[in-house]
Amino acid sequence: MTDLGAHVVVVGGGFAGIAVGRGLANSSVRVTIIDKHNFHTFLPLLYQVATAGLEPADVAYPIRTIFGGAPNIRFRHGRVRQVDHGANAVVLDDGSRLDYDHLVIATGATAAYFGIPGASQYAMPLYSLADARRLRNRLLLALEDADVRAERESVSLTFVVVGGGPTGVETAGALAELIAIALRRDGLRLDARRVRVVLVDLADRLLTAFPESASRYAARELAELGVEVQFGRSVVAVEEGAIRFADGERLETAAVIWAAGVTASGTLVHGLAVAAGPGGRAGVGADLRCATGENIWAVGDAAAIPSADGSFCPQLAPVAIQSGRYCASQILRVTRGESTTPFVYRNKGIMATIGRRAAVAKLPRGGVIRGTLGWLAWLGLHLFYLVGFRNRLRVLINWTWRYFDWPSGPRLIVADAETAE
Amino acid sequence: MTDLGAHVVVVGGGFAGIAVGRGLANSSVRVTIIDKHNFHTFLPLLYQVATAGLEPADVAYPIRTIFGGAPNIRFRHGRVRQVDHGANAVVLDDGSRLDYDHLVIATGATAAYFGIPGASQYAMPLYSLADARRLRNRLLLALEDADVRAERESVSLTFVVVGGGPTGVETAGALAELIAIALRRDGLRLDARRVRVVLVDLADRLLTAFPESASRYAARELAELGVEVQFGRSVVAVEEGAIRFADGERLETAAVIWAAGVTASGTLVHGLAVAAGPGGRAGVGADLRCATGENIWAVGDAAAIPSADGSFCPQLAPVAIQSGRYCASQILRVTRGESTTPFVYRNKGIMATIGRRAAVAKLPRGGVIRGTLGWLAWLGLHLFYLVGFRNRLRVLINWTWRYFDWPSGPRLIVADAETAE
Repeated sequence: MTDLGAHVVVVGGGFAGIAVGRGLANSSVRVTIIDKHNFHTFLPLLYQVATAGLEPADVAYPIRTIFGGAPNIRFRHGRVRQVDHGANAVVLDDGSRLDYDHLVIATGATAAYFGIPGASQYAMPLYSLADARRLRNRLLLALEDADVRAERESVSLTFVVVGGGPTGVETAGALAELIAIALRRDGLRLDARRVRVVLVDLADRLLTAFPESASRYAARELAELGVEVQFGRSVVAVEEGAIRFADGERLETAAVIWAAGVTASGTLVHGLAVAAGPGGRAGVGADLRCATGENIWAVGDAAAIPSADGSFCPQLAPVAIQSGRYCASQILRVTRGESTTPFVYRNKGIMATIGRRAAVAKLPRGGVIRGTLGWLAWLGLHLFYLVGFRNRLRVLINWTWRYFDWPSGPRLIVADAETAE
Repeated sequence: MTDLGAHVVVVGGGFAGIAVGRGLANSSVRVTIIDKHNFHTFLPLLYQVATAGLEPADVAYPIRTIFGGAPNIRFRHGRVRQVDHGANAVVLDDGSRLDYDHLVIATGATAAYFGIPGASQYAMPLYSLADARRLRNRLLLALEDADVRAERESVSLTFVVVGGGPTGVETAGALAELIAIALRRDGLRLDARRVRVVLVDLADRLLTAFPESASRYAARELAELGVEVQFGRSVVAVEEGAIRFADGERLETAAVIWAAGVTASGTLVHGLAVAAGPGGRAGVGADLRCATGENIWAVGDAAAIPSADGSFCPQLAPVAIQSGRYCASQILRVTRGESTTPFVYRNKGIMATIGRRAAVAKLPRGGVIRGTLGWLAWLGLHLFYLVGFRNRLRVLINWTWRYFDWPSGPRLIVADAETAE
């Protein structure tokens, strides 16, 4: 390996890690991006894979391909077990070590279960392509099983979505649509009134990051799709086939989808002696460097990034992308002997979609767009951010189909493991 | 359930089973199609999924959707454990029974291992979408692992394809192309000369069902793609990470792909006291009925269908489709009190593709088409037979991309099972 200057190791190939790589592509430093998957996942559309609207390949893109044109960027398939920050090296799962001059922690977030008994075993999160595929198989198999049982008895089927944030709202809406299509077109022998999608939240409204008018709009649209929204409900346990609430109710479920919140992913952040911020995130200064070392940076969902109002930036894709891009520029400054400048998050607004034809967007200045216009804005933005041109085209084709309600859709149950014959 | 006339139970939703269903759609009989998968798989393109050229959804189509418009056809997700032909009923895995007036066995074929030790454990077949996904993950992971090891040592990687029929030839060609793309564009640190694709066969030529000129052409084209073809090689054992030949050679392998032959799938055919034909297939008369009962039919790969020359029809998609369509027409004749007419297979020729731009086709009258024209014929035919319009479009887009060599392609490793973090 020829010496191309400082070696930057980026752990994680999500929005933040990819943005770091893009910012450093064709620069004077060498970069190694490490991820346990060989692809980048477009997380905002994962719920569509889970509800059979999109295929895994629509929302994933090989990391090697993203950086195919940049000779200074390498991809390393693997998992970082430990950071030896005294020796400036990371230790991988297979025991090999990688020295770094700069380390960027971009390990993202994962589902937070808040210690609720059974939640991590029985509830289904939605933070990886494997999660999405597993959830899709569960949903479709539940419908098939119910169809079989409906020959002999009256069957009820309840899907519970925990969490009324964007992920919960989007998943509940898409799930209700999937069920409607399955009942109407696939000829399942189920009574539509006995197949329920229930969205529960502890708060008294949906989408608490949005203005109240957006919350009311989302609730109305979900109700129209057949989703039952229940507020003020506190989950105390998840069991196999059931969920328990603080008021004593036990609800039998075909699946519990966990969209209740996130925490920084994995042990890497905790293993480093970095001051942990809220939600288990790595504490960082205004230039996203950790107190542990001048050459350790944390970006995206893994970092508790200070915001202008004295609080922390939300764990959103735009924050991840901006912080990654910023981090790349600062590493280049440091390698040139310059001092860092503080990170400033530029609020681009937030969006959530409800089913196929409605969405809400909160604009940076507080305005709200909703309805079909909101949906088109949501569509355009997501297509724009999808990594490759090919993926954009595929997703557009899939959505066009769904929009016009054509009788297809990849509702396949591909088993995780399969016994012979 | 209202009585719509005779109840036809079709076991298997492959080419043959779907053809039976299509032939009986909107007729006077009730039909139940049983399959352990909720989708039909377009098997001729499975090797493309295994070599990351296509996605699972490109070659699979929900069975319910295929028959969404036919009120007399039901889909039942499940596995038939046993046929109680005395009682005219099938018993499913979950213990439930289904009465039939006519039973159609369309359970297809699966890999034949010929009792070779280790083959069923360590060699990888290609007869289901799950097989294809597993093989793809194995291939891509082997490349990633080799890339990591290449940091420290000189790495060799050998993929062995067993069997020189169409499946073996197509898989070996596509695999060589996948490796070439990975080395050239993904920047893997492997020495191209040390990554081998070896195709072995016991015979002394490829594609024995084709004329010799086609065999020579296929061998030349494979060699051009970098595939080593070895004839007269007898496999005596498959081990974890190795294959053994009769001449004593032991070859270390990253994967052994099994395309050596097929046998009728599953225990259903054997469980019935039907006269078994060659390759474990159900023996049938000229009207595809089994000796076991006047109302038990076998079609497609599961049946040893007599051919005009006194032998048996090959296990090919056109035979499956024609026999399924024929069976439907005969069941309707029988329900009308008419007698059956014998099945006649209309030979439409056979085809195999070698890589992205070459194919050979043997025409019904013995002529051979090859080269780009052969490839275009192959492409057109396969697109034509792909079930849904949407799938055709998706596949066409994918192929266009591949043909023009654009730097994308869904080379994703989506783990079967994944540990948290």
